[in-house]
Amino acid sequence: MSGDILFAATGWDSELWARKFETAAPQRKVHIYPEGITDPRINYAIVWKQAEGALAELPNLKVIFSLGAGVDHVFRDTKVPHVPVVRVVSNDLTNRMSEYVVWQVLDHHRMGMKYRTQQLSKTWAEDRAQPAAKDITVGMLGLGVLGKDAALKLKNLGFNVTGWSRSAHHIDGVLTFSGEAGLQDFLGGVDILVCLLPLTPATANIIAAPLINAMTKRGPLGAPVIINAGRGGLQNEADLLQALDEGRLSALSLDVFQQEPLPATSPFWTHPKVTLTPHCAAASDPNALVEPIIRQMAAFERGAALTNVVDLKLQY
Amino acid sequence: MSGDILFAATGWDSELWARKFETAAPQRKVHIYPEGITDPRINYAIVWKQAEGALAELPNLKVIFSLGAGVDHVFRDTKVPHVPVVRVVSNDLTNRMSEYVVWQVLDHHRMGMKYRTQQLSKTWAEDRAQPAAKDITVGMLGLGVLGKDAALKLKNLGFNVTGWSRSAHHIDGVLTFSGEAGLQDFLGGVDILVCLLPLTPATANIIAAPLINAMTKRGPLGAPVIINAGRGGLQNEADLLQALDEGRLSALSLDVFQQEPLPATSPFWTHPKVTLTPHCAAASDPNALVEPIIRQMAAFERGAALTNVVDLKLQY
Repeated sequence: MSGDILFAATGWDSELWARKFETAAPQRKVHIYPEGITDPRINYAIVWKQAEGALAELPNLKVIFSLGAGVDHVFRDTKVPHVPVVRVVSNDLTNRMSEYVVWQVLDHHRMGMKYRTQQLSKTWAEDRAQPAAKDITVGMLGLGVLGKDAALKLKNLGFNVTGWSRSAHHIDGVLTFSGEAGLQDFLGGVDILVCLLPLTPATANIIAAPLINAMTKRGPLGAPVIINAGRGGLQNEADLLQALDEGRLSALSLDVFQQEPLPATSPFWTHPKVTLTPHCAAASDPNALVEPIIRQMAAFERGAALTNVVDLKLQY
Repeated sequence: MSGDILFAATGWDSELWARKFETAAPQRKVHIYPEGITDPRINYAIVWKQAEGALAELPNLKVIFSLGAGVDHVFRDTKVPHVPVVRVVSNDLTNRMSEYVVWQVLDHHRMGMKYRTQQLSKTWAEDRAQPAAKDITVGMLGLGVLGKDAALKLKNLGFNVTGWSRSAHHIDGVLTFSGEAGLQDFLGGVDILVCLLPLTPATANIIAAPLINAMTKRGPLGAPVIINAGRGGLQNEADLLQALDEGRLSALSLDVFQQEPLPATSPFWTHPKVTLTPHCAAASDPNALVEPIIRQMAAFERGAALTNVVDLKLQY
C-alpha cells in the first residue's frame, strides 16, 4: 500500500494540483487540507505556506515536500512536525533566477534608469563614463545553488564577482568570503550586492543599516546597489529607504517584500531609484515540480536517501 | 625615419587624441587634419568619419586605422584611397557589445516594459506565462567577432541561439544559417532578432518590410522583437514603425538610427514599445585604442601582416 499525500498549500488551486499529483502517481490518494489531517495512511505532505498546525496531527507523516526553493514558509508554522523537509532544486528554477539576477545587474551597470529617463525627455546623451563589466564588482550574498549559478553567469559576462556564505565555498574565479569574520571585508568591496540568502532566524532582517553601512566602496556607479531576489524578510525596508535617500545606496532592485502583495502605500512603488517586480524572479514552471516529488517518494520507499533535504537546525 | 600620422576624426577632441598618440609613439609626428594633407612623411591615417577627400592627396599613405569596429564611416568618403583599412577589434569593445545585447534580450524576455508599466500604476501582478530562456530563440543577424561573442553569452544563459551570416560559420551549440538561401529559414524561427551586421552596400536597409515579414514565428513573447545595435543605416525606420503598430513586431530596442542624434520629431522617442539608447551599446574605452594601433604600425614596419584588415570589396 503506497503512502498517501496531504496537499496543504495556500494560494494554489488545490483541486488542480491534487489532480496533477494523482495523475503522476495513480496509486496514491491525494487529500486536500483540511480533509484527512489525522489520516494514518498519509505519509507525505506537499506544502506551500501551510496553515498553522496543518501537519501536526498526522500520525504517520514521513516527509514534507516544499513547493519552492525557499522553505521559510514551512517553518512559519510553529507546529510543523520534525520530519525531513525536501525543497525544490530544479535547473529550470535555477536558470530563471540567474536570468533575473543578470538582467538586473546589467540594468544597473548599463544605466537603464538613466537612459529610460532620457528617453522620456527626448534627450540624446551618451554617458561617456560607462564602465566595463570588469570594473564592477558584483557580490553574491549567499552561495547556494542559485547564488553559485548566478555568480558563474555574471563572471562569464566579464564582471568581477565575489561571494559570501555562512560556510566556506570555492568557486573558480570568484573571490569568496565566509562567516561573520569575512562579511565586513566582502561588503567593503562590492558595487552591486545580490542577495539570494534563504530566510532563516539567522538571516532575517540582515539587509539593514549595519550591512548597508559596511558597503563602503564608491566605485564607477557611485554608491552601491542592492538587488534582493531572496525573501522580503531579509530586508529592513525603512533602512533601505533611508540609505537611498541619504545617498548611501544609489539604487535598488527588489523582487520581494516584507508584505506581499506590496501595499499601495509603500514608498518603493514611486521611488525613482527603485526597480520593483512582483516576486516573479524565479517562478518555476509548476508542472516541472510534480515528477521530481513523485520520484523522490518512490525512491524513499525503496530505501534510497532523500535529496535536497533541509537542515532542520539551519532551516535551509 | 618613422611614418607620421594624420589624425582626421569628426566629433573627437583632436588635440587631445593627437597628444595621446604622440605620447604612445614619441618618434611619430601627429598631424591634425586639415594640416599636412599632402605631407609625404605621412604613412598612416587614423580616422573617424573623415571629411570627404581628407586622405586623397597623401602621396605615401600606407594604412588607414578606423577608430571603431564598424568602417562604414571610412567608405562614406568616396575619395578614400585604396590602401588597407584596419578596424578596431578589442576584447573591451566586444564585451561591452555583448553586455548591451544580453541586457536588452533579457529585458524583453523578462518583460521589463510590462513590469515597469505595472510599477507606475502600483499594480502587483506576476505574469504566470513567463517563458524560460530555453523557450526563446534569439537569432543573431551577423556572426562576426561581436555576433559570435554575444551568441555564446546568450547560450550560456540558456537561450536557444541561432545565427545568420553571409558566409557559413560554425559555432558550437548554435544553429547557423548562411547566404540568401538560409535567410528565410533563419528569420522564420526567431523570437528575438539581434542585428550586429556591418553597414555595407549589401546590408544597407536590410531591416525593412521583407525581412520583418519573414519573421513569421509567434512564440511565447507574441510577435518577434528586433534589437539593432549595429548601424542605423541597416534599418528602414518607417517600416519598423508600421510593423510595430500593426503588431507584426512586439517591441524594439534601438541603439542606432538613420540620423544621429535622433531628431526630437522621431516617433521612436515616445513609442511605448521602443527602448531607445543613444548609440552607447559599445563605446570602447578610447584609451584602449591607442596602444593596439601604435603596435600595428610598428609591426607593419617590421614586415608583419596587419590584422583586422577590412575586405575592401565587402567593406567589412
